[in-house]
Amino acid sequence: MQVAIPLYPRLTALDAIGPYEVLQRVPDFEIVFVGAERGEVRTENGMLGLTVDAVFAEVPRPDVIVVPGGIGSREQVRGGALVDWVRAVHPTTRATTSVCTGSLILAAAGLLTDLDATTHWGATELLSRYGARPVRQRVVAHPAQRIVTAAGVSAGIDMALALVAQLVDETAARAAQVGIEYDPEPPFDAGHPEKVGPDVLGRIREYAGMRS
Amino acid sequence: MQVAIPLYPRLTALDAIGPYEVLQRVPDFEIVFVGAERGEVRTENGMLGLTVDAVFAEVPRPDVIVVPGGIGSREQVRGGALVDWVRAVHPTTRATTSVCTGSLILAAAGLLTDLDATTHWGATELLSRYGARPVRQRVVAHPAQRIVTAAGVSAGIDMALALVAQLVDETAARAAQVGIEYDPEPPFDAGHPEKVGPDVLGRIREYAGMRS
Repeated sequence: MQVAIPLYPRLTALDAIGPYEVLQRVPDFEIVFVGAERGEVRTENGMLGLTVDAVFAEVPRPDVIVVPGGIGSREQVRGGALVDWVRAVHPTTRATTSVCTGSLILAAAGLLTDLDATTHWGATELLSRYGARPVRQRVVAHPAQRIVTAAGVSAGIDMALALVAQLVDETAARAAQVGIEYDPEPPFDAGHPEKVGPDVLGRIREYAGMRS
Repeated sequence: MQVAIPLYPRLTALDAIGPYEVLQRVPDFEIVFVGAERGEVRTENGMLGLTVDAVFAEVPRPDVIVVPGGIGSREQVRGGALVDWVRAVHPTTRATTSVCTGSLILAAAGLLTDLDATTHWGATELLSRYGARPVRQRVVAHPAQRIVTAAGVSAGIDMALALVAQLVDETAARAAQVGIEYDPEPPFDAGHPEKVGPDVLGRIREYAGMRS
């Protein structure tokens, strides 16, 4: 089983690494990080480098793809090698998946037209502009279309566990979950904008302003 | 605030990237990935490359360190540049932390002697051999000693959120949690060996055998 995870400049690292960490626990899953060029790409803030080991042309028939999001997705959706590759490989995948704003890239490739889909909470309007129907759900699966979208960043971990259950069996998924000791105890109940007050929303805006 | 995350060959990626993804959301936290040599290190299975941007000597006074685990920790605990650096920088950190078997490295540096500490469930005995007192807890904090250890792999996310609350404030921690949309919905209740049956434990052993 070949799992391809595309990397591109200014991606969100955990979008890619959460699912990677789950999926690589199945011994016959081979994970390959693909991109427009071999070599390093840097995350959105530039503080982390990840390696692209294969160019898109070298991975023409992956069984599974996991498209991460990040601020760099805004550049990717305009078209180019990543969108073209997603469109080209989808017909033969067993699962075409995205995390966070990775769903914008699936949408730009024409895969989400008139389908329910999810993304990071901050990108729901943008997702609808690409023809998808955004829903507030952590994971949205379309078995007939072989498409799964996950919500923001950490949702990729939940999605990947469900994917192992689907592609292998539930025992394998539980084994992966034990392996990463995924028994979450978030110190706060603050996983969505609807769960926090104006102080937190104000801080998010303040921090966003400091970055741009 | 300088946060240093050491990388070494055969680490577990999510141990490092979970906390990174939380901590980098605070604009005045600068994250630096340090190691014995600049350049790429590969994860335990070799399927992912991460970049070391600074050698240990270039990061002599980090405010926070987050030491990841992974099968490669077994090599690191024998001593060398990483253990020496942890021992050298600890006296001036605001927080010296570990995820998963990263606690073995803190212990090898002499920081956990006679302290309660946590690690991956598969490494509790090994941790006690290094003088710590393993406890089954997701995060173990010793404010007076400025030491925090987190359990296996995904526990680093929970730890990092608590760390932001401690180092900045709760509003910042909640803002980071909203940012990564950390509202976990694991598809199974299987986050610890005590929560699964013999079929799953058997599968874990089977997969471990296929890897070695």
